[in-house]
Amino acid sequence: MNETFTYEQLFGFVYQVFLKMGCIEEHAILASRVLLDADMRGVDSHGVARLSGYVRLWEAGRINATPDIKVVYETPSTAVVDGDRGLGLVVAPFAMKVAIQKATDAGTGWVSVKNSNHFGIAGHHAMMALDHDMIGWAMTNASALVAPTFSVERMLGTNPIAVAIPAHNEPPFVADFATTTASNGKLEILQRKNEEAPLGWVQDIAGNPTTNANALKEGGAMLPLGGDREHGSHKGYALGSIVDIFSAVLSGASYGPWAPPFPAYVPVPENMPGEGLGHFLGAMRVDAFRPMAEFKENMDNWIKRFRSAKPIEGHEKVLIPGDAEREMQIIRRREGIPLVDVVVKDLQEVGNKMNIPFL
Amino acid sequence: MNETFTYEQLFGFVYQVFLKMGCIEEHAILASRVLLDADMRGVDSHGVARLSGYVRLWEAGRINATPDIKVVYETPSTAVVDGDRGLGLVVAPFAMKVAIQKATDAGTGWVSVKNSNHFGIAGHHAMMALDHDMIGWAMTNASALVAPTFSVERMLGTNPIAVAIPAHNEPPFVADFATTTASNGKLEILQRKNEEAPLGWVQDIAGNPTTNANALKEGGAMLPLGGDREHGSHKGYALGSIVDIFSAVLSGASYGPWAPPFPAYVPVPENMPGEGLGHFLGAMRVDAFRPMAEFKENMDNWIKRFRSAKPIEGHEKVLIPGDAEREMQIIRRREGIPLVDVVVKDLQEVGNKMNIPFL
Repeated sequence: MNETFTYEQLFGFVYQVFLKMGCIEEHAILASRVLLDADMRGVDSHGVARLSGYVRLWEAGRINATPDIKVVYETPSTAVVDGDRGLGLVVAPFAMKVAIQKATDAGTGWVSVKNSNHFGIAGHHAMMALDHDMIGWAMTNASALVAPTFSVERMLGTNPIAVAIPAHNEPPFVADFATTTASNGKLEILQRKNEEAPLGWVQDIAGNPTTNANALKEGGAMLPLGGDREHGSHKGYALGSIVDIFSAVLSGASYGPWAPPFPAYVPVPENMPGEGLGHFLGAMRVDAFRPMAEFKENMDNWIKRFRSAKPIEGHEKVLIPGDAEREMQIIRRREGIPLVDVVVKDLQEVGNKMNIPFL
Repeated sequence: MNETFTYEQLFGFVYQVFLKMGCIEEHAILASRVLLDADMRGVDSHGVARLSGYVRLWEAGRINATPDIKVVYETPSTAVVDGDRGLGLVVAPFAMKVAIQKATDAGTGWVSVKNSNHFGIAGHHAMMALDHDMIGWAMTNASALVAPTFSVERMLGTNPIAVAIPAHNEPPFVADFATTTASNGKLEILQRKNEEAPLGWVQDIAGNPTTNANALKEGGAMLPLGGDREHGSHKGYALGSIVDIFSAVLSGASYGPWAPPFPAYVPVPENMPGEGLGHFLGAMRVDAFRPMAEFKENMDNWIKRFRSAKPIEGHEKVLIPGDAEREMQIIRRREGIPLVDVVVKDLQEVGNKMNIPFL
């Protein structure tokens, strides 16, 4: 059911596909890196499994392979970037570099992005800050799959938040999560296995709680983190809204139910109030708050104390955000990246279409 | 069971208490306003119900009524404020003003605070930015009541996040929530009524899920937003951690299980790695991203669209974060602030102790 590939094998193929789309070499390398970073970290839904989707958006004229990405508005600590309909995989790193430069000069840098597309794994962009001894933020809005508390209608995307915080001897703290109870990727796994979803993940077309893993496809909606009002879904709804507003209302991208869809066969919403998808990237120099060594020493202490918290019986240990992905990365570096049949077939079709043999 | 008071009645009493503690008039007014703001907005757990707690911390020498609050570290867009063990109710507004000044000059301002105490209702501080056409952020760490995913031990406070975003004709978007499934205040209501808590709110002393509303008092812990791993508690744990690190590791306050407790009878933890409680305040000039009128027009459009989302049968409408608190404020302005017997008795005791008759 699974076939396993090395990083280099998949990178070589993906890179050729981006080149064939017309990307310049620098962009093809960057986009391939961001995509493969998701596979390496075990976020399979945001890796090469998405490649055919990007290709179809490009075929439909909704992704510009040769964008003129630029800063269109700025202050000492802020900027707005126009992605010129480029791959989010290259637009977001561009914007993050602007944020890092702003932070170098002003202490922090905050960049809102319009006119972009799906940016892949949020954690990648946030983690760019770590090499500069900065805290990194990355958020993006996405097409509406999520119903706010008490809403039948889907109004928000899974709108992830990633925050990466450097430490000294300890590995960095890297949180990267959708603002929903569960990711769409996890739902798809249950669909493939014909299994039920836990209550609190989705609602049906009338807004009733359901365990039907296919509810989303049948007109239902995903649920904000919390699941229902009693368990704090209004908090997940608020978080998803903050991501939407920071990514799209601040930049001039399209927001809420008007966010452009990822599947190329779904038409873009009418009367979009902004341009394309939006992102929000941030960088904060640690030594804009206290001397670097002091911060890092305390961050190590924080991490060690939390890691040593007494675990509940039956659980090995308490994890720090980022631990699971880092462990997966070590395993996949050693053992390769397993792809399920449907993804392999999908990549073969991309290869056939673009005349690039898939391995 | 309830007795109702006007804003002015309670303000007059609370103000006298702060003066008696030795606060200067400006601080006594400010602290009273922040406290009463919670009661007016229906966040009863953070209003006058807390007054006796502040008094006891002052009696124990853990709150300094005449603090020298100052900026001790800064860059164009950041600062660290030392609260000099003052009331968080006055330290946080001081820090927010610094953030607003930084944002005026650099586009955004971010202030981490150490050596403070409980700052009351987070939303108040975030909303200070609205008058300046800025987005406001407020977070604080708090004494450890919350167990990370898979942890028996309490490691984090209820660590709230507040974000306030201005609009034009529509009222502002104001999210203000603890990063737990439910607030401690809601748990206390169930305890008083002798009712069970929903699964996902608390765990028992061994880390097992329980509906026992007294579990926290019996050595258990509150749970991060999500409730359990299957419903995304690792996301709530990550959010609470981010609040802790931004509030305390960035500033040099005490963090995680070492955060100083609110009840004065609980001794401060040994070997605290920092000074007092920490907060994190932020201000972002809306026109540091796009022209003000454009932003506000789109924010109005965002709010109107979400408010008009089709509600689930049996629910009147979809709310915008902040709606419920604003509606409560209107009601309480008209009808007064109801206080439960135990709070009235508590205030009477404070009055007796300080020789200030309680109404």
